[in-house]
Amino acid sequence: MPKDVITPRATDYNQWYLDIVREADLAEPAEVVRGCIVVKATGWGIWEMMQRELDQRIKATGHANVQFPLLIPKSFIMKEAEHVEGFAPEVAEVTRAGGEDLTEPYVIRPTSETIIGHFYSRWIRSYRDLPLLYNQWCNVMRWEKRPRLFLRTSEFLWQEGHTAHATREEAMEETIRMLNVYERIMKDVLALPVVPGEKSEGERFPGADNTFTCEAMMSDKKALQAGTSHFLGQNFAKAFDIKFQDRDGEVRYAWTTSWGVSTRLIGALIMTHSDDDGLILPPKVAPVKLALLPISTDQDLISSTLEPKAEEIKAAIEAVIGRRTVELDTRYHLRPSDRFFHHLQRGVPLRAELGEKELANQTLRLVRRDTGERIDVPMEEAPRRVLEVLEQVQENLYRRALDFRLSNTFEVSSMDEFKEVLDSKGGFISAFFGGTKEDERAIKEATGATVRCFPLEDHSTGTCFYTGRQGCKRAIFAKAY
Amino acid sequence: MPKDVITPRATDYNQWYLDIVREADLAEPAEVVRGCIVVKATGWGIWEMMQRELDQRIKATGHANVQFPLLIPKSFIMKEAEHVEGFAPEVAEVTRAGGEDLTEPYVIRPTSETIIGHFYSRWIRSYRDLPLLYNQWCNVMRWEKRPRLFLRTSEFLWQEGHTAHATREEAMEETIRMLNVYERIMKDVLALPVVPGEKSEGERFPGADNTFTCEAMMSDKKALQAGTSHFLGQNFAKAFDIKFQDRDGEVRYAWTTSWGVSTRLIGALIMTHSDDDGLILPPKVAPVKLALLPISTDQDLISSTLEPKAEEIKAAIEAVIGRRTVELDTRYHLRPSDRFFHHLQRGVPLRAELGEKELANQTLRLVRRDTGERIDVPMEEAPRRVLEVLEQVQENLYRRALDFRLSNTFEVSSMDEFKEVLDSKGGFISAFFGGTKEDERAIKEATGATVRCFPLEDHSTGTCFYTGRQGCKRAIFAKAY
Repeated sequence: MPKDVITPRATDYNQWYLDIVREADLAEPAEVVRGCIVVKATGWGIWEMMQRELDQRIKATGHANVQFPLLIPKSFIMKEAEHVEGFAPEVAEVTRAGGEDLTEPYVIRPTSETIIGHFYSRWIRSYRDLPLLYNQWCNVMRWEKRPRLFLRTSEFLWQEGHTAHATREEAMEETIRMLNVYERIMKDVLALPVVPGEKSEGERFPGADNTFTCEAMMSDKKALQAGTSHFLGQNFAKAFDIKFQDRDGEVRYAWTTSWGVSTRLIGALIMTHSDDDGLILPPKVAPVKLALLPISTDQDLISSTLEPKAEEIKAAIEAVIGRRTVELDTRYHLRPSDRFFHHLQRGVPLRAELGEKELANQTLRLVRRDTGERIDVPMEEAPRRVLEVLEQVQENLYRRALDFRLSNTFEVSSMDEFKEVLDSKGGFISAFFGGTKEDERAIKEATGATVRCFPLEDHSTGTCFYTGRQGCKRAIFAKAY
Repeated sequence: MPKDVITPRATDYNQWYLDIVREADLAEPAEVVRGCIVVKATGWGIWEMMQRELDQRIKATGHANVQFPLLIPKSFIMKEAEHVEGFAPEVAEVTRAGGEDLTEPYVIRPTSETIIGHFYSRWIRSYRDLPLLYNQWCNVMRWEKRPRLFLRTSEFLWQEGHTAHATREEAMEETIRMLNVYERIMKDVLALPVVPGEKSEGERFPGADNTFTCEAMMSDKKALQAGTSHFLGQNFAKAFDIKFQDRDGEVRYAWTTSWGVSTRLIGALIMTHSDDDGLILPPKVAPVKLALLPISTDQDLISSTLEPKAEEIKAAIEAVIGRRTVELDTRYHLRPSDRFFHHLQRGVPLRAELGEKELANQTLRLVRRDTGERIDVPMEEAPRRVLEVLEQVQENLYRRALDFRLSNTFEVSSMDEFKEVLDSKGGFISAFFGGTKEDERAIKEATGATVRCFPLEDHSTGTCFYTGRQGCKRAIFAKAY
């Protein structure tokens, strides 16, 4: 296959995804390091924009950033029973360092509840020391047998928040607060409509009492868990002896939470918004928001007029939409269509063409990446109009993804219907459910679908489609990444 | 020793340093992970400010951020002869992962020339692909037998730039360009006066043809290497087969560079500016730039007037000097002197007191951390005056450190004089030097001092103080961290 061709989604969704990642310069498999990737310039640029937006919100909700060690004594991972079961099989172990065999191996953090629990137990003495509200941006490692760019990689980048509280109520409030922060940023910045909900018993984080999630629907109708927030109860407090003297003089275990989102979100963006031409990025996370192309075959006109004018327009637009957000494309040796295609594939939200006709009319032609719509705007109004159209693109991408999810969510009330709908239509299956962990497993085996979550905003109850039990909550099932 | 007491520098410089780090909440030893640290909230806040400033400059000079894997196949480290000698003894090795012994171990990156070299060799085909100008912000690991908070830790955070060029000249230009970027940011943001210079043969990066450095003087007159930029020649290109077809059709090896600064800079800040009361931070890297303290014993006055007024002043000042840069101290249960001391120890550049007298006079009392100077300013002028005084603090810290270095730099012209001056005065020894790597070693054994650099701005030549050779360049010698 020629390097710059993107396989249509309908032909091979998986290959379409890989083609998008390659052509948009997002990442490539590292190959020499099992399951790891190189995050390339555009991919990292998107991650930086997400980081900036999320970091502000993490700070605005009272958290401070810190940094704990990359390595964790292996014995720490073994201290919380469910945690060891969940993570021990996938850790990478450091057994030699500084030319010597280590007496106790370290693991590269797969997540940091254990080592942070160790320090929290040292830092907390009294209720006055609570709450502790910390976050770290870092890399983690979980050995992947079946890696998939951004979605499942052995090393990935993320933020992990870890908090400790004096009461169950405060810890639960914090868990939900951060779930809400995730939902808002996914909606407002990534244009991802997600379903915030609670995980079933079978899908919880190893060591959590409750896990809350933001579930997104990809364009192949499969679900993707886009971010999670865990109420850890007193499990890690007991395993790591995180105790405090309360107001009444009693010594109590603290209540802890953890919450994280990762570079996996880049995968969610790709599979939500992109099309057969390539990547589509919501303007708010697009490192390049506008590609500006002077177009002419007259080299003199280009140097004397078009390019100086383009520089001027670039500066004026960047003054409104931000520094280094406009890319001036001066690759005149390529055909205009090839130049267009380059930016299409890279997901640049808006293209601006400046040719002889535009020069004569003192206009600029804007072309939307999401709809292909062409808009001629008076040159002096360009900055304001670009800002306006970018907002429309952002809004449209969200609306489009939401419509797609809503029109691919189906209510069912029996197992037969469940299977029939899932086979014929795919998508999200909405059903009252009150089964056990074992029931979840049986449903997964029969259908390939798992409980994605019990949506928080849905308070209705009804008869479980599987067990027939009464008064059950509504669940969303789907095949998932 | 009581927890909040700082040992005077004159008594025990090393203990003073540890006390500062502890009391300012910068970091603590991780203990359970050999040589590693927890970077705490204030420490990480400083690092974030450095990152932001430096990242802008790295991008402004045409580089893009990317991310390469944490792990490197051990065989890669072995490919460049000097590199293996320098780094093999200090790597941490991953020998098990996903529950299995690995056939080839990985090392946790001690630096990334090798793995990046591997990818560059795949990405570069033609001169048109050059230059490659990439940087990454990441953690690295070098097993430390004698760790020291921020200065030498097994894991540390840094940025590492890696570039590949078609010609020697371009690569050398890049090496110097980034050295200059480092010098400027150290001067303008960290208030660190540094000597930019070239390393001697004995002090080069393992695998570099030339290493350039920014050398700073700490307040105990020892030197600290604050950042380095390496001209790698074709060494890594040859080891990793980084070749390109040139304009003339010939296939040539590329020329590469690398450059980095790390969390070690936090150690440099501490040991340059701080005093026996605690940390002193230059305003441009201080997460909290102003501590604002309403002071009264009258609780009613506090709630009715002082605190609302303080909130108002805080908002007005933050509008001028930046969001979340003013800390409102409402710990009325403490004595004012204890509240002052808290901010002193944490290095907050400016304190503002708002008491009954200030309220009556409609003034605000500013107290500078660097000089202790008290300045009463009219309340409505507070934002502008705070900004002004912060600029003066920044400037003064730089000036003071520069004066200290200049007055502790001594020219010598013989070995006897070298020893005599170093023993009696310490500091930087400036001398013409043209010795070999073996001569460097002998001087180090005799005096404890090493060649810090050949300063780039000094073009004078003279007789080598050690070999008597003519026409030698000036070198700076010092005992170093």
